[in-house]
Amino acid sequence: MAYPLIDAGRVWNRLMALAEIGALSQGGVNRQALTLGEAEAWRLILDWARPLGFEPSTDAAGNLFLTLPGEDRSLPPVVAGSHIDTQPTGGKFDGAAGVLTAFEAAETLAAAGVPRGRDLVVVAWMNEEGSRFAPGMTGSEAFSATRPLAEIRARTDLAGITMGAELDRLHASFPDVPRRPLGFPVGAYVELHIEQGPVLEAQGKEIGIVTGMQGKRTFRITITGAEGHAGTLAMAERRDAIAAFGRMVVELNRQVGAHDALIKFTIGRVQVEPNAPSVIPGKVTFSIDMRHPDNAVLELLAERIRTICTAEAAPCAVTLDLLVNEPSNDFSPVLQQAIGAAAERHGYGAMPILSYAGHDSRHLAKRAPAAMIFIPCRDGISHAEAEWSEPAHVAAGAQVLCDVLADLLASSEMPSA
Amino acid sequence: MAYPLIDAGRVWNRLMALAEIGALSQGGVNRQALTLGEAEAWRLILDWARPLGFEPSTDAAGNLFLTLPGEDRSLPPVVAGSHIDTQPTGGKFDGAAGVLTAFEAAETLAAAGVPRGRDLVVVAWMNEEGSRFAPGMTGSEAFSATRPLAEIRARTDLAGITMGAELDRLHASFPDVPRRPLGFPVGAYVELHIEQGPVLEAQGKEIGIVTGMQGKRTFRITITGAEGHAGTLAMAERRDAIAAFGRMVVELNRQVGAHDALIKFTIGRVQVEPNAPSVIPGKVTFSIDMRHPDNAVLELLAERIRTICTAEAAPCAVTLDLLVNEPSNDFSPVLQQAIGAAAERHGYGAMPILSYAGHDSRHLAKRAPAAMIFIPCRDGISHAEAEWSEPAHVAAGAQVLCDVLADLLASSEMPSA
Repeated sequence: MAYPLIDAGRVWNRLMALAEIGALSQGGVNRQALTLGEAEAWRLILDWARPLGFEPSTDAAGNLFLTLPGEDRSLPPVVAGSHIDTQPTGGKFDGAAGVLTAFEAAETLAAAGVPRGRDLVVVAWMNEEGSRFAPGMTGSEAFSATRPLAEIRARTDLAGITMGAELDRLHASFPDVPRRPLGFPVGAYVELHIEQGPVLEAQGKEIGIVTGMQGKRTFRITITGAEGHAGTLAMAERRDAIAAFGRMVVELNRQVGAHDALIKFTIGRVQVEPNAPSVIPGKVTFSIDMRHPDNAVLELLAERIRTICTAEAAPCAVTLDLLVNEPSNDFSPVLQQAIGAAAERHGYGAMPILSYAGHDSRHLAKRAPAAMIFIPCRDGISHAEAEWSEPAHVAAGAQVLCDVLADLLASSEMPSA
Repeated sequence: MAYPLIDAGRVWNRLMALAEIGALSQGGVNRQALTLGEAEAWRLILDWARPLGFEPSTDAAGNLFLTLPGEDRSLPPVVAGSHIDTQPTGGKFDGAAGVLTAFEAAETLAAAGVPRGRDLVVVAWMNEEGSRFAPGMTGSEAFSATRPLAEIRARTDLAGITMGAELDRLHASFPDVPRRPLGFPVGAYVELHIEQGPVLEAQGKEIGIVTGMQGKRTFRITITGAEGHAGTLAMAERRDAIAAFGRMVVELNRQVGAHDALIKFTIGRVQVEPNAPSVIPGKVTFSIDMRHPDNAVLELLAERIRTICTAEAAPCAVTLDLLVNEPSNDFSPVLQQAIGAAAERHGYGAMPILSYAGHDSRHLAKRAPAAMIFIPCRDGISHAEAEWSEPAHVAAGAQVLCDVLADLLASSEMPSA
C-alpha cells in the first residue's frame, strides 16, 4: 500500500491563519466556545473545506463535521479531529492542531486518489475547554450520550447566558450548514493533540502513542457564611466564607495535592460574593479539578475532599457537587500498533505515553475504537500564551495521522476497541 | 431657645421611598455609586428639595449639596448629611438615614422660622461605600483635600470604566444643578448614621454620642504565579497563585485577625486570573481591610501583613499596595456635649460610643469641628439586606440632629474642633 505525503507548509500556514482569530499580544489565543471568534473560525474552515469537496454538517450539540464521502455511505465513518475552542489565555495548538492535521490528512488522501470504502469525517467538537461554559467536552459528551443535551443547554456562563441560547444563535448564523442527528455510529476515531507535558521533548521523540487517559473528577464547592460590615462586626461573631475557603485550600493542597507524584490537583475558579472590599464575604464558590491514572486513588481522594471541606467549613456551611466523574481508560491496541508502524515507516521516533489531560477521545472511546497521537510541545506548556509546537513536529503528526486514516479507509472491518 | 419638632412620619416615608430605588428582594438596596440608580436617587431628592427653597449644587467630586441660604452668606455654612450610595447588597439606612434626617431637620427649622445666621447645607457625599470604585469616601476625601481628584478620577471599576468618565456623565445628566468649587470652608459638620454594631440596642439607648473613629488601613495585594494545564503540570513544578493565597488567608487570620478583641480584619474582594476550572491560576489580587482604635496596633499589624505575605508567597511573587491609611480620630467635645443635651431635652437615652466603621466625617473632621450621632440598628447588622432601624430611633436621631443644627445656626462663633 502506498502512503501519500502530507504538505507540511500547508498545514502550518492553516494553523497560523486560524490562530489569528482571537490572537493575544503574547502569541496566545482567546477563542472560547460559542463566542463570535469561534463562529469566525468556523467560517474560515468552511471556506477552506467547501472547494475541496467536504460536506459540512452540524448537530444539536454544535459539533462541526466535514465529510469526504466514501463508496458505501451506510458504513460507520472513520472520524478524526479535535476542537477549535481555547482557554481564555490559550495557545495556537491545543485543539486546533488536531482539527487541522485531520483536515490536511483528508485533503492529502483525497488528492492522491486513495480509495475510501466509507466516509471520512473531520470533526471539531464543541466546547472542549469548558472555560466559558464549565465543565468542558460538551460536544463529545452529548455525541456519546455521556450527558443529556438538555443538561448541557441549561448551563450558564458568568453573565447568566445559557449554553442553549448560544447554540441556537450559532446554528441560526450558519443556515447553510445542514443539521444531522446527534450521535451517529462511528467506525473508528483518531485524535492528534499536543502532549501538554514535557516527556516527548525530553526523550527527543516526535510521536507519542497514547496508551490511555488518566481519570478525572471535578467538583463545585459552595461555602455559605454571612455577610457583614468589615469595620464593625467582631471577629468572634463572623461567619467569613473566605476564611473557611483559605483553610480548605491549605488542607486540600496538603492532604490531596501532595498525595503522590502522579496526582494533579487544581483550584482554578473562585467566585466571592458580594466581593466588595469592606464587606465580609457571605459566599465563596470554587472548582476542584483532580486527575490520577489510578481509579482507586481518585475514589479515595474524592472521599478525603468531602471530609476536609466539611471539617474546615465551620462556622460556615458547605455543599459539594460532583460535576465530572470520568475513570481512566485504555485506547485501542490495534490503532496504537498502526500509529507505531506509521512512525517507523517515516523514520520518526515514537514512544508509548499516558495522557494526563482529558480529551474528547475519552468519550469517543465509549462508542468506537479510538486512539490518540501526541506531538511534543515546548517545555510542556499549554493553556498559556507561551504554548508552542515545532513545524516539523506538526508535520510528523499529520503524516502519521494520514497513514493511520489510510489504513482504516482500506479496511472493510474496523479494529476492535 | 425653642426647638421645633421634626415630623417622624415624613422622614420615615422619605427613607422608604428612597429605598425603592435599587430595592432587592430581601428588603435590601443595591444603589452603588455612579450608577443609574444613584442618579435616580438624586432626581428624587431634588424633586423634594426644590419646592422647599433648597439651592442644589454639586462639585467636581460628585458631591450633592442642598443649601438653605442664611443671613450672612459669606460665613462658612453649617453642614449635615451622609451618603446615598450602598453596598451591592446593602440596606435602607446606611447613609440614607444621615442624608434624610439632615433634610428633615433643615425643613423643620425652615418651616418653624428659626433664624439662620449662616447657610445650612444638606450634603450627600459621593461614593462613601467604595464598592464599585474602591476604596470609598472619594467625595469627602476630595472635598477635604485628603486625596487628589485626578487620582480618584483615574480609578476603574471591574469593567475598566474610569470614575472620571462616570463623574462627567453624572454632571452631564444634571445640567440644571450648578457646579461649585471643590472644598469650600465649613463652619461645623454633623452626621447621623446607624451604629452598624450591637451596643446601643443591647444598652437600650436611642442615641450614641460618637467620641471618635477607629483607624483604618486598606491594602491591595497581588500574587503572581504561572498559568498551566490542570491535568498535566506536575504539582512540584507549579507556581499556583491560589495555593499561595490560601496560605496567606490562614496565616493572616491567625496572626492579624486574632490579635486582640478590638481588631477587625477582612479579606473582602478576590480576583483570580484566568479563573477557569482547568487552568492553574497565574494571578490572584485581593483586598485587606484592617481597623483598630489604637494607631500603634495598626502600625504593628501593617508590618506583620507585609511579613506574612512575603513569607507565604513562594514560589509565587507578591506585591502590597497601601491604599488607605487613616489614623483614629476624636470628635469635637463641644458638639458631643450639644448632642447629649439634645437627647436629654427630649428624654432619649444616650451614651458615648466609638465608631468602628469609617464615615465621611473622618475627612470633614480635618477641616471643621465635626460630630456624629448614632442610632441603633437591629442585631448590629449592616452592609446586608437584613439591615433595619426602628422608626422611633430614626425620629429620635432626626430630632437630636435638628436641635444641634439649631444651636449651631444660633451661634455667631462655631465651636472648636
